[in-house]
Amino acid sequence: MATFANSVAHPTLISNLHNRWHPDIPAIATVKPGQVFNIECVDWTGAQIGNNDTSDDIRDVDLTSVHNLSGPIAVEGAEPGDCLVVDILDVRPFDKMPWGYTGIFELENGGGLFAREFQSRAAKAIWDFKGVYATSRHIPGVRFAGVSHPGLIGTAPSAELLETWNKREGALIEAHANAVPPVAYGPLVPGAYVGQDLPDDVRAKIYREGARTIPGREHGGNCDIKNLSRGSRCYFPVFVKGANLSVGDLHFSQGDLSFCGAIEMAGIVTFSTSIIKGGVEKFAMKQPIFLPSPVDPLYSAKLIFQGISVDYHGDGTQYNMDATVAYKQAALNAIAYLMKIGYMESHIGAIVDSPNACVTLALPLGIFEHDILPKDEGLKKLEFGQCAVRSDGVL
Amino acid sequence: MATFANSVAHPTLISNLHNRWHPDIPAIATVKPGQVFNIECVDWTGAQIGNNDTSDDIRDVDLTSVHNLSGPIAVEGAEPGDCLVVDILDVRPFDKMPWGYTGIFELENGGGLFAREFQSRAAKAIWDFKGVYATSRHIPGVRFAGVSHPGLIGTAPSAELLETWNKREGALIEAHANAVPPVAYGPLVPGAYVGQDLPDDVRAKIYREGARTIPGREHGGNCDIKNLSRGSRCYFPVFVKGANLSVGDLHFSQGDLSFCGAIEMAGIVTFSTSIIKGGVEKFAMKQPIFLPSPVDPLYSAKLIFQGISVDYHGDGTQYNMDATVAYKQAALNAIAYLMKIGYMESHIGAIVDSPNACVTLALPLGIFEHDILPKDEGLKKLEFGQCAVRSDGVL
Amino acid sequence: MATFANSVAHPTLISNLHNRWHPDIPAIATVKPGQVFNIECVDWTGAQIGNNDTSDDIRDVDLTSVHNLSGPIAVEGAEPGDCLVVDILDVRPFDKMPWGYTGIFELENGGGLFAREFQSRAAKAIWDFKGVYATSRHIPGVRFAGVSHPGLIGTAPSAELLETWNKREGALIEAHANAVPPVAYGPLVPGAYVGQDLPDDVRAKIYREGARTIPGREHGGNCDIKNLSRGSRCYFPVFVKGANLSVGDLHFSQGDLSFCGAIEMAGIVTFSTSIIKGGVEKFAMKQPIFLPSPVDPLYSAKLIFQGISVDYHGDGTQYNMDATVAYKQAALNAIAYLMKIGYMESHIGAIVDSPNACVTLALPLGIFEHDILPKDEGLKKLEFGQCAVRSDGVL
Amino acid sequence: MATFANSVAHPTLISNLHNRWHPDIPAIATVKPGQVFNIECVDWTGAQIGNNDTSDDIRDVDLTSVHNLSGPIAVEGAEPGDCLVVDILDVRPFDKMPWGYTGIFELENGGGLFAREFQSRAAKAIWDFKGVYATSRHIPGVRFAGVSHPGLIGTAPSAELLETWNKREGALIEAHANAVPPVAYGPLVPGAYVGQDLPDDVRAKIYREGARTIPGREHGGNCDIKNLSRGSRCYFPVFVKGANLSVGDLHFSQGDLSFCGAIEMAGIVTFSTSIIKGGVEKFAMKQPIFLPSPVDPLYSAKLIFQGISVDYHGDGTQYNMDATVAYKQAALNAIAYLMKIGYMESHIGAIVDSPNACVTLALPLGIFEHDILPKDEGLKKLEFGQCAVRSDGVL
Repeated sequence: MATFANSVAHPTLISNLHNRWHPDIPAIATVKPGQVFNIECVDWTGAQIGNNDTSDDIRDVDLTSVHNLSGPIAVEGAEPGDCLVVDILDVRPFDKMPWGYTGIFELENGGGLFAREFQSRAAKAIWDFKGVYATSRHIPGVRFAGVSHPGLIGTAPSAELLETWNKREGALIEAHANAVPPVAYGPLVPGAYVGQDLPDDVRAKIYREGARTIPGREHGGNCDIKNLSRGSRCYFPVFVKGANLSVGDLHFSQGDLSFCGAIEMAGIVTFSTSIIKGGVEKFAMKQPIFLPSPVDPLYSAKLIFQGISVDYHGDGTQYNMDATVAYKQAALNAIAYLMKIGYMESHIGAIVDSPNACVTLALPLGIFEHDILPKDEGLKKLEFGQCAVRSDGVL
Repeated sequence: MATFANSVAHPTLISNLHNRWHPDIPAIATVKPGQVFNIECVDWTGAQIGNNDTSDDIRDVDLTSVHNLSGPIAVEGAEPGDCLVVDILDVRPFDKMPWGYTGIFELENGGGLFAREFQSRAAKAIWDFKGVYATSRHIPGVRFAGVSHPGLIGTAPSAELLETWNKREGALIEAHANAVPPVAYGPLVPGAYVGQDLPDDVRAKIYREGARTIPGREHGGNCDIKNLSRGSRCYFPVFVKGANLSVGDLHFSQGDLSFCGAIEMAGIVTFSTSIIKGGVEKFAMKQPIFLPSPVDPLYSAKLIFQGISVDYHGDGTQYNMDATVAYKQAALNAIAYLMKIGYMESHIGAIVDSPNACVTLALPLGIFEHDILPKDEGLKKLEFGQCAVRSDGVL
Repeated sequence: MATFANSVAHPTLISNLHNRWHPDIPAIATVKPGQVFNIECVDWTGAQIGNNDTSDDIRDVDLTSVHNLSGPIAVEGAEPGDCLVVDILDVRPFDKMPWGYTGIFELENGGGLFAREFQSRAAKAIWDFKGVYATSRHIPGVRFAGVSHPGLIGTAPSAELLETWNKREGALIEAHANAVPPVAYGPLVPGAYVGQDLPDDVRAKIYREGARTIPGREHGGNCDIKNLSRGSRCYFPVFVKGANLSVGDLHFSQGDLSFCGAIEMAGIVTFSTSIIKGGVEKFAMKQPIFLPSPVDPLYSAKLIFQGISVDYHGDGTQYNMDATVAYKQAALNAIAYLMKIGYMESHIGAIVDSPNACVTLALPLGIFEHDILPKDEGLKKLEFGQCAVRSDGVL
Repeated sequence: MATFANSVAHPTLISNLHNRWHPDIPAIATVKPGQVFNIECVDWTGAQIGNNDTSDDIRDVDLTSVHNLSGPIAVEGAEPGDCLVVDILDVRPFDKMPWGYTGIFELENGGGLFAREFQSRAAKAIWDFKGVYATSRHIPGVRFAGVSHPGLIGTAPSAELLETWNKREGALIEAHANAVPPVAYGPLVPGAYVGQDLPDDVRAKIYREGARTIPGREHGGNCDIKNLSRGSRCYFPVFVKGANLSVGDLHFSQGDLSFCGAIEMAGIVTFSTSIIKGGVEKFAMKQPIFLPSPVDPLYSAKLIFQGISVDYHGDGTQYNMDATVAYKQAALNAIAYLMKIGYMESHIGAIVDSPNACVTLALPLGIFEHDILPKDEGLKKLEFGQCAVRSDGVL
């Protein structure tokens, strides 16, 4: 008889938050290869952003504590030099929290790629999740199937690797000491958190040396690859015994589906793992490799915008083979097009995290409820809503 | 602050089981158009099949009570002649019950399309769900991403429509009085169930007249369309006030992904609805129309088997444009091919439900863990496991 | 220096037409495994249909001579029991003939699946090929990317296989002696053609015994599988020395892209072949197997129509598991829907060839230039053109 | 009767070569909107590269004359400020020239993105086209369906736009006067060519001022977008009366299908055009917009390599948000992986043209004839062939 009695749910590992990468953070749980398990994650800010209609929480967000990770999880048998295979079996919001948000941050506090061009003031769009779909009361006329994925996933660095990171990023910070926003974020004691009861000296060392969880690095980290959706497989290099996997910064959707930043959410990921002994050498791994899922929204019709490394949206300077400038132009071309329809500049946010970049750009037609293709009669400007803005009215 | 406190989960409507279609079964809940809601469903047999390693429960299944439905749910404002739009937002197993099964039924009790050809004895494969993937201890070497969907979904018939069904199916039954298995199943008091506290005469009338929930009909019903996965939209004709939608017989996957019957499961569906007034006339609807989801496993590589309406797997008779015979040959060709690799004839089950047919056939290559393409050296026979069989050892 | 001088085009084998299947038709050319070659094909009628605006040629088409094939081509080393692998490298219209047609045939002369329901009179739509796209002056508002393929491809039967065909089809014809249209077409001397200079007795034998090329059979033949587009691979059983491959009945597109018959064309196919020794036994082949192309128009958005084996478009009879009846209802449902928009019943033609059936049904949304989805305001009837009809005005 | 007599092929416009962009180059033909026409193109070098087994022609290629374009074609009615819509209906090699090549250029003469890292010596792989597939005697084990497209397509610049180009590129060249390879290529009289009989002073002006055709710019140009395959639609800004469209640099395939440079070919493109009056303003166009084709090889399974803006394949320097450095690392990661299998470093070539960049990276699994996924036992090194190298043996 098929009753609930003879069924066993996959275990949910007790979630532990930390916001620094360091080899000395102990694993909070150990799994066996092949075991299926769930991990609960807060959103990247650690629940600083609310489901409401002002953007004050975005404006005032405390960035010393981001990005929050759940973990580390040790995998039995994993050793430095191995390849940790992680199957992402599911990614979903909490049943009790079927919403997420896209935020636009001010130049002075987290400002994104275009913060300077647009003199962005804090703004926010709340997205309601209806099963696989998202809609927003702040951006009407758009409904799309999400490609949910963890924005941030990686193995713990070894002491040597951590030292390399701190050294090279320190050099960059030094070279651009007064940049706003900063070019990179070094170790920072205020806001640091490991979420466990540790001896004071261990904790202090982690706080003092721990790499910020903001950028992606050789171990994975904040790579924001939209393809890491349910069904995908990741291959990570292992740097410490147990691999010590951490994950967080869940996105309901991102990337091709939203060139203007992810839809951030809290939720649950389901993983299973396996180990390939000596995989780092076998596969010449300097960074993770990913095998995307066969399950993906099929928005085959796209409108593609081009950009070259000439700043023609700015002062017209010619750059030499600079893909970042080229990407910015492509994005600004798409934005100019969307503004003809009525999608506002408030629709622009942070794409990538200092100092490491990763870019794509195309507008899937299927996410718009009306036809946005170029037409003889031009584009019809529609009356759209308004993003959540600052309660003091500053735009 | 984004806490659980300011979040509201989508409501789960109290589930009610019924296993007959009748206009007099009252709705157990009413939803508004646009509202998102969950419905819990047992598997089609009503939990008669267990997660174990014998097939006795398949052999002895009580078919008088199948297929179990959850509902009916009334939609505010829906009237006969309207079109009820149902968005299937999610379909998933219960967290506590991450498994399902494929059953092969005996000729004398539920036998499928090939029950006679193969003199099938009861057999069963249990599938373990790992997020989006299914694997089976009984069919090793296969792992695939499911296309979960409700196998059975429909609106309640009007009294007139019910009468038409009973009349035309009665005529067919009469014409094939001694068929084994029967060509169709008429109303049957034993096993009937409506799941509500009703006046005796109403209940008796429902039991006496209610159409069996086994086949698909003009209102939808057991159509087993694999495309009704999360993200899809269905358009149903409305025959009674409120539409009275019922759903059940969830499948983890079916159809192109498994030509030998669905993977049956219990679980939760998430729906929202809307109404198009007068839609039956507007769209010339005689039956539901479906708009498949943009989210689907992309198993693009397939091996296609052909069949013609000549029974060359049997006595060689030539039939005239008989798609059913043609389909059987195509399926038997695929089976013969798979048997070369070692997939057993126990891999064959019921595809369709009497008396109405709906067929497709292709083998997605991506679900096999080894290469099954035709090769110069022929196909390598692998040692596979064994389906769960009868405890008395009869094969 | 890259001049045309050091380039060698793939050879075009001199085309030879024949319209009967018989083991005694000699190969007109021999290719080596691995060789790339082109074959020129007339349309299935042998150029009886013109690019004009009346349907008289459809009404008066001489069906004794159809379907015309190009070949046979022998493959060096192929022997009975082998599997002939055919790579379909390209399929395209003649540069000088960038058009094709869809025809609706009268009940008395070639009538299709719905000839009786609609009392079809001859009609025709001409399609203009613009690279990968087709448009029609007779069916405005539709433009789609073709999936060009040979509708008819197969290896020559052995004497034994031919005898089996003639016997079983003869029995069926005898059993339905007065059917209109006939249930099958037996060997027929008038209209027979082998296209080579042969001894009189050989030719007479071929004419007397040769199987008609209309239906599909165990060797392939007229299977009308839309997936056999450029890039696909076919596995054929070999029945005679050299395999003797023939091909014809090219379609610019068909199947999912046009549920109402193919767009017929003349053109060129490019093939290469290889042989798997003993493949018939190795792969348990009773019929060809196909591996579709990775190159295919991606019309992912589809509207799906359902049909059950109840003739509710006719007299309401309930049939038992009859997939042909079910398919007809599904097609009639789609037609009723399209008629709401203004696509005419003249849009209906032959799908399949007696006596063997093969069916599919879905409307790809991307081929329509306007939105045909169910909408609140119903479907807008548009003014479309008119198919080419009989010059005597009979509709 | 459907004979060739009543068919009309699409016209092939007499091809004219030019290798500079200038408003004063007269159109060599005028087409009407809606007309279908063919244009013949040489390969980008103007047939300097041969189908042979040494790379001397690559080493000695004359780059003063590249890239060769066919055109300009004027479109009746197009005026500055309009949007020229170009439908790419087909792209294919000449029947008589079914081959193409991938070249690796030396640092001193055309060197690509990795010319310095790998100290590249000239090398070459010849690809044989077999319908939709390409294979190479120089890179065995790979066979894939091409996404053929014009690498270079654009409208003529106005005098003002040309002046802007020359000014901004001149400034960049001046700033990097001694770069090897140069950061950009200014106007250059030697090698310039317009292909028409023009007055001496006009010709001299064009030679003196004409922009090189190497990079992409606001009018399109050398954008190497793999999506511009048959079936796609392009929207170009118009800068001169008639638009004066030119095209060249055909690729059998590129981009996602070959991260190491395109497969260059000569061949024929088929176009039709239309005009959207005032489209530049209507769509806020600063550069072309593209709508990709629904027809594309569906290589859904991909292996994704990541790169960050740290030069860990070089000296380990940390760069700030530099997408070009990040892309290089991702490419080098993929290369390191492929070298484990045996694909050689000679497999690396030029991706992009100075000074404007555009990048992507993923390995489609379907193009490899053997499984290249990470496996427990590591990657098996296979014995592959050898690219064509210099006849003097220098590697």
